[in-house]
Amino acid sequence: MADEFSRIQTYFAPLAGPEGRGLTDDAAVLAPPPGRALILTVDQMLEGVHFLSQDDPALIARKLLRRSLSDLAAMGAAPLGYLLTTALPPDIGEDWLAAFSHGLAMDQAEYGFTLFGGDSSSSPQHISLTATLIGHTAPGAALGRNGAKPGDDIFVTGTIGDAAIGLRARLGALQNVPDALVQRSLLPTPRLGLPLAGIANAAIDVSDGLLQDLGHLCAGAGLAATIHAALVPASPEAATYGPDFLQARLTDGDDYELILAVPPALRTDFLLACGDTPVTRIGAFAPGPPVVTVLDATGQKMAFPKSGWRHF
Amino acid sequence: MADEFSRIQTYFAPLAGPEGRGLTDDAAVLAPPPGRALILTVDQMLEGVHFLSQDDPALIARKLLRRSLSDLAAMGAAPLGYLLTTALPPDIGEDWLAAFSHGLAMDQAEYGFTLFGGDSSSSPQHISLTATLIGHTAPGAALGRNGAKPGDDIFVTGTIGDAAIGLRARLGALQNVPDALVQRSLLPTPRLGLPLAGIANAAIDVSDGLLQDLGHLCAGAGLAATIHAALVPASPEAATYGPDFLQARLTDGDDYELILAVPPALRTDFLLACGDTPVTRIGAFAPGPPVVTVLDATGQKMAFPKSGWRHF
Repeated sequence: MADEFSRIQTYFAPLAGPEGRGLTDDAAVLAPPPGRALILTVDQMLEGVHFLSQDDPALIARKLLRRSLSDLAAMGAAPLGYLLTTALPPDIGEDWLAAFSHGLAMDQAEYGFTLFGGDSSSSPQHISLTATLIGHTAPGAALGRNGAKPGDDIFVTGTIGDAAIGLRARLGALQNVPDALVQRSLLPTPRLGLPLAGIANAAIDVSDGLLQDLGHLCAGAGLAATIHAALVPASPEAATYGPDFLQARLTDGDDYELILAVPPALRTDFLLACGDTPVTRIGAFAPGPPVVTVLDATGQKMAFPKSGWRHF
Repeated sequence: MADEFSRIQTYFAPLAGPEGRGLTDDAAVLAPPPGRALILTVDQMLEGVHFLSQDDPALIARKLLRRSLSDLAAMGAAPLGYLLTTALPPDIGEDWLAAFSHGLAMDQAEYGFTLFGGDSSSSPQHISLTATLIGHTAPGAALGRNGAKPGDDIFVTGTIGDAAIGLRARLGALQNVPDALVQRSLLPTPRLGLPLAGIANAAIDVSDGLLQDLGHLCAGAGLAATIHAALVPASPEAATYGPDFLQARLTDGDDYELILAVPPALRTDFLLACGDTPVTRIGAFAPGPPVVTVLDATGQKMAFPKSGWRHF
């Protein structure tokens, strides 16, 4: 088996930008883009928690990057590069590394950024991965979770809940699930590149569950949110699963769509800025305690036992 | 047990600087210091690989930070802040978190930097931690591994091999080991703040073993290195362990001292720049294949079965 240094040179050095100095130095050197703010985020993926042992290593790699890219998207930032840590058990071989690094290369090319550096370690048992993404935006333009105003519309990008159904298929709890839903759970699409600075008042990505993540916008702004279950957009494939899966769709997360607070007066600017990206208005913010209320088609409040994922 | 969000607010939000936005946003926002290069490094510490389950959580936290601070020191950089990931098994309680975050706070205060953000997760079994450190230096001033020149002296800071003996005590393989050596293994001191830009041609920190890390400087420069075993500085406590422990001292690492390539013509400038930091000349670089040769007191070549730690 190749040792640590030859693995780095074989699989990871080809992914490095000039900041990575060939992955032979103690650290990366970045000349920040002049006049820009840097946006920094880190996410981890652990075998058995965030992915399954049998998952395709290329898809694990891409989802690792895309979860952090989605955080950059929620801040209105564009990616520059990343640092990677891998902790791999002894049974991980060259095939796994080749596929994993190929997945990294695919998404580096797709989203236009490079590897800056990292750290590799052995792991006693489980695969553990982290990616620290570095992005940039104009100073003062970073979106946040705290800016929603009373009366702001609540928009979501794309469709909500595909990943919830896809995950159930991957876990064997559902049979004959359309491949599109499984793929959505394996490979989300970060909503990068929407020019929403000066238009949206707040943003967050749906990682832990629509209700929970919307709840963060409520808490950040000290506002109540009311959404209509029937307005929450479902893909055609997810729609066939009907109301039995509404709770899963609203609370499971892993969609990596954006929730956006948008002043009604700027709705036209917002829709123009979104361009080809589908967006749907699902409700609005109002003065009140920071609670998310979901209404059914008759206007009745719906109750859910949980709002999303929490790690303990 | 407190959930993820209340734990973040209790233990980690008090550590955050303004860049961390209260740890409630998707990412940190950093205005880079104008006219400076950023230095980025990430290190991980896994239970059972980099620390022992019974180790003091405050010391685990501080060593996690100090390993990356040492990488900044090797690049000639000063710290600005860091991102932290924690993956904790269910049996980790509030006491552990309180001690761990206290350790982080101690070293943030000692070295002058703040928490920018992070990610927390559950872990099936083992504790897994990463720290991504962000530092800064003057543009073009970052030291690297590739700049050693033929004839450069090889200097090391401090003493080499305390941690090797301390680790053996922690593992129960040695009895009655002086506490200073055990502490050195638990809590290294990063050699930050040496103004070596324009003086040292290359630098690396001793994390994986003196011989292996010096070998990286040889490989980076395409030069041979010869050092004298008797010149490698030992602490008074380590010196009593004698020649039986020479191999451990030269190949075990975890000292987090710096190895520096210094032109003989700049030796006086170098010693002045080092100020109170003890430095010792242990050998020199010369033209030749990138191999480290260790000579004994009679000038004979010494052989070692390994040069340092490699993770597979």
